[in-house]
Amino acid sequence: MRPFTPQDFAVRRRRAAAQARTAGMAGILVAPGPDLAYFTGYTPTAVTERLTMLVIPAEGDPVVVVPLLERGDLVQATGGELESSAWNDGDDEYATAARLLAADGRYAVSDATWAMHVLGLQRTLTDATFVAFTDSLPMLRAVKDAEEISRLAAAGAAADAAYADVLGLTFSGRRERDVADDLGQLLRAHGHEHVDFTLVCAGENGADPHHEAGGRIITDGDMVVLDFGGLMWGYGSDTSRTVHVGDDFTGQEREVHDVVRAAQQAGVEAVRPGATCQDVDRAARAVITDAGYAEQFIHRTGHGIGTTTHEPPYMVEGEERLIEPGMCFSVEPGIYLPGQFGVRIEDIVVAFPPGSPDSALRLNTSPREVQVVA
Amino acid sequence: MRPFTPQDFAVRRRRAAAQARTAGMAGILVAPGPDLAYFTGYTPTAVTERLTMLVIPAEGDPVVVVPLLERGDLVQATGGELESSAWNDGDDEYATAARLLAADGRYAVSDATWAMHVLGLQRTLTDATFVAFTDSLPMLRAVKDAEEISRLAAAGAAADAAYADVLGLTFSGRRERDVADDLGQLLRAHGHEHVDFTLVCAGENGADPHHEAGGRIITDGDMVVLDFGGLMWGYGSDTSRTVHVGDDFTGQEREVHDVVRAAQQAGVEAVRPGATCQDVDRAARAVITDAGYAEQFIHRTGHGIGTTTHEPPYMVEGEERLIEPGMCFSVEPGIYLPGQFGVRIEDIVVAFPPGSPDSALRLNTSPREVQVVA
Repeated sequence: MRPFTPQDFAVRRRRAAAQARTAGMAGILVAPGPDLAYFTGYTPTAVTERLTMLVIPAEGDPVVVVPLLERGDLVQATGGELESSAWNDGDDEYATAARLLAADGRYAVSDATWAMHVLGLQRTLTDATFVAFTDSLPMLRAVKDAEEISRLAAAGAAADAAYADVLGLTFSGRRERDVADDLGQLLRAHGHEHVDFTLVCAGENGADPHHEAGGRIITDGDMVVLDFGGLMWGYGSDTSRTVHVGDDFTGQEREVHDVVRAAQQAGVEAVRPGATCQDVDRAARAVITDAGYAEQFIHRTGHGIGTTTHEPPYMVEGEERLIEPGMCFSVEPGIYLPGQFGVRIEDIVVAFPPGSPDSALRLNTSPREVQVVA
Repeated sequence: MRPFTPQDFAVRRRRAAAQARTAGMAGILVAPGPDLAYFTGYTPTAVTERLTMLVIPAEGDPVVVVPLLERGDLVQATGGELESSAWNDGDDEYATAARLLAADGRYAVSDATWAMHVLGLQRTLTDATFVAFTDSLPMLRAVKDAEEISRLAAAGAAADAAYADVLGLTFSGRRERDVADDLGQLLRAHGHEHVDFTLVCAGENGADPHHEAGGRIITDGDMVVLDFGGLMWGYGSDTSRTVHVGDDFTGQEREVHDVVRAAQQAGVEAVRPGATCQDVDRAARAVITDAGYAEQFIHRTGHGIGTTTHEPPYMVEGEERLIEPGMCFSVEPGIYLPGQFGVRIEDIVVAFPPGSPDSALRLNTSPREVQVVA
């Protein structure tokens, strides 16, 4: 994978400035984390109370507000490509930032900017307005270019390889967290630099969509939801499959799995030119509703993915945005039966890539039929 | 170490409510992370765009706003002690939160609350006011009780034990990051559940206070700044020492190290009844200024530590707050000579603990004399 270059980051910043202009905004304020890495390649040692913030004005050159004692790290990471404005302990960091901003400007800020910082800016620039990226420029990072898609595809393939290996493990008699540990090691072994989550939810725990993995002993006859992901080359993986321990299924287990599988297929097939994000949710949800499980599908159908695991666009009722070529997102319907079990099937897809201009391409291709484990 | 109990968390919440009342605030809004863990023991699987927020009203019972699909995790972590108000994907989560808030109330919010969330609350409750903890109730977590101090002491002792082991390693000929990896493993071996940072800054890299650890080969004659810490029993360690590779010192190396050591001692001794936080900074800085290195001490002298590595109170010019019994913070002056080397010496101290009611007790007791490594 070729590393992103200073030119790549500059292109992204120029595109962001253009989006800000189109939206009538004065600029974009970028906090440390995935957003700052996306626009500069720079990630501070730690996200702390000390203000670091990239200012991308709608017109003019970007500048990074940086603590004096971290300026060296910034220069090293960016090759000195970016202007910086340093402040020292004891200075008013918001005054330093305010000098770069229009007094009555409207600014988009990273969703995860610390409240302390945005409140500090509001206090300093009382006539300026601040709106979160997701609420003002949700498409900032939503459309991926070829280099980004190749990273997401690599991450997806690695997650699939980890899943293939997991199927060969013994589940019965082990704790959820033991299988979760194995899953984390497999993600690393297949090239992930970071493991974000390894959910292993056996039996009744599968009915809790965000159950992690605990001390419950997995036993013969359990349905087990696996949902795992992390970062590879800086981009995320996120996939779910539901397996069965032993081949002695109940009729309901088979039925629910079939419904979720059909719903997931319908969601993926709903990614067509002219479709909106909510169409994907509606298509998947309709299958589950028709089967009588509407009340048991208790979350949205999907979320964008890139340098963060969850990001716009969201596949949810009310999201009327058109799906554009290069958007990457999850399609992950589920059915959750409290006290019994759950089923979720999740793939990351890319919309209308070269080669399939009218449909979604799955970046996870593990078998979606229910697999039997030992 | 006994685990914190639901009663401990309830006591903390009641104390916070009392602080809010005293400050004329309507309540406290707590985001996932160290703040939420401090007040509830609950840490969501991941901090995401989905709003989780503990509301501690000045009067009345606390309630946790939680995504529906994570309510099970909350109940499990808190033993159902806390009321919750769940919202589902597609709902307006800020409306859910707003129903728990006073329309014209003034609220303290966790510093690290996502900007998206505080801006969403501002949009929904246009007459309410939001101020960051650090700017409104900085003392919320600053005074530690005996249970907390025992955890900080254990973390400090473990960091010291890791340092003692590090002194026996070979430095010369290895990369900074190799020593950093060893340091991380030693912190874990001595009981840390999480390693936050392991800075190894050789020679000229030591002049950058936040240099991490890179590919530079450590060589004979280098001064090497070590600064490392993590979490043990949920509480932080953070200590720095500067070592020398081989015993062939320059006069300047010895002089600068002596100055920093004297400055650190002066900072610790400035912790006396009636002293303010800025007095600690002034005492340490005076020693360095008198030695002619004022311009080379480019950061504040210290920061509070607890469930986060950096938190109020800050030992910085302008912080006129009195030091109170039970405050825990770092004393870490340094001198940074660009292109040459740096020296920093850092201990965590607790102010006026039982047994030393008029002074600071160091929680790090590694020798502060410069140590020679191989």
